[in-house]
Amino acid sequence: MKANIITISREFGSGGREIGQKLAAKLGIPFYDKEIIAETAYKTGFAEEYVKKQGEYASARNWFEYSFSARNNSYGMSPEDYLWSKQREVILDLVKKGPCVIVGRCADYILRDRNDVLNVFIHADYDKRIKRICEVYKEPEHTEKMLKDIDKKRSFNYKYYTEQTWGKSQNYDITLDAGTLGIDQCVDIIAEVAKKDLDK
Amino acid sequence: MKANIITISREFGSGGREIGQKLAAKLGIPFYDKEIIAETAYKTGFAEEYVKKQGEYASARNWFEYSFSARNNSYGMSPEDYLWSKQREVILDLVKKGPCVIVGRCADYILRDRNDVLNVFIHADYDKRIKRICEVYKEPEHTEKMLKDIDKKRSFNYKYYTEQTWGKSQNYDITLDAGTLGIDQCVDIIAEVAKKDLDK
Repeated sequence: MKANIITISREFGSGGREIGQKLAAKLGIPFYDKEIIAETAYKTGFAEEYVKKQGEYASARNWFEYSFSARNNSYGMSPEDYLWSKQREVILDLVKKGPCVIVGRCADYILRDRNDVLNVFIHADYDKRIKRICEVYKEPEHTEKMLKDIDKKRSFNYKYYTEQTWGKSQNYDITLDAGTLGIDQCVDIIAEVAKKDLDK
Repeated sequence: MKANIITISREFGSGGREIGQKLAAKLGIPFYDKEIIAETAYKTGFAEEYVKKQGEYASARNWFEYSFSARNNSYGMSPEDYLWSKQREVILDLVKKGPCVIVGRCADYILRDRNDVLNVFIHADYDKRIKRICEVYKEPEHTEKMLKDIDKKRSFNYKYYTEQTWGKSQNYDITLDAGTLGIDQCVDIIAEVAKKDLDK
């Protein structure tokens, strides 16, 4: 069966988001990003800026905090867990509309029961990501801290909600080093694979 | 710069070796496997069968054994470390001859200082590997144990000699799930990438 949905997980600064956008344009299918934020904000009543920032981060930042987090007490669901569950519903609804590209948000895990999902992970080496972040975000003084911080949060968020390891090659159909291969070649590889049948 | 050398690391039973052979045939370059064994056997004086079996395994099987292994005492080098160092020399000599494909043997790590090496990791899910091993090795009763045992040894060997994690996507330019993508598509993807420049 052909891949109708392509999920792209990515290291911060690797160019994964740009790859997702270009891939969707090349395949002529929607790239869901702002739609997920807007719809999740609408469903939860949270501000779009909060959804944008927290949508890929779990509430707890380490095992200690996790042990004492809202998830494990009797006071109900934490705001982050509530956001995650609503965001999950939004993703499950959006994919009903047809083929699409989704970046981040544990979409690979959320859609794990479907056999028409191609899961991709994009990474690049540290120096190339720093260079890209400086170019894109224009704040070189915060770049290194930003990179470490965001990757740590994404990794923890993935582990927290999926119990799996973020970036472990066995979790994906393809992983690509966008630093050595280049953005456009990554787009071409994924687009080619999306035309063929997946044996899932 | 184009990739002159392609290294393929692989989970046992994933089809990585077949991908390496087909890729080399498609690109019209040598596939080094028996040459490495024969040359290492010649250099060390060890039997070819021993080199074949031990060439991808370290001497110690866990951290406890590692702590007390020959590597850490004053009685000289262990036979496995000696084999590894000679095999490394053989690989470094072979690649001087020109473009080639090498499967396993930590070749990605051994050649890490070159900027014309494309590093690939091939994996597949457990059930598909079991099926493939049954077909190839015709010993279904030993299959599961064999799979777990060999992967564990390869993983430990990689860690032991490279201090890096085997199968971690960030260590490779490309990782592919040969179970969902199929052997031939993996060959095509790698062959296409090998025609382009790598930014290393």
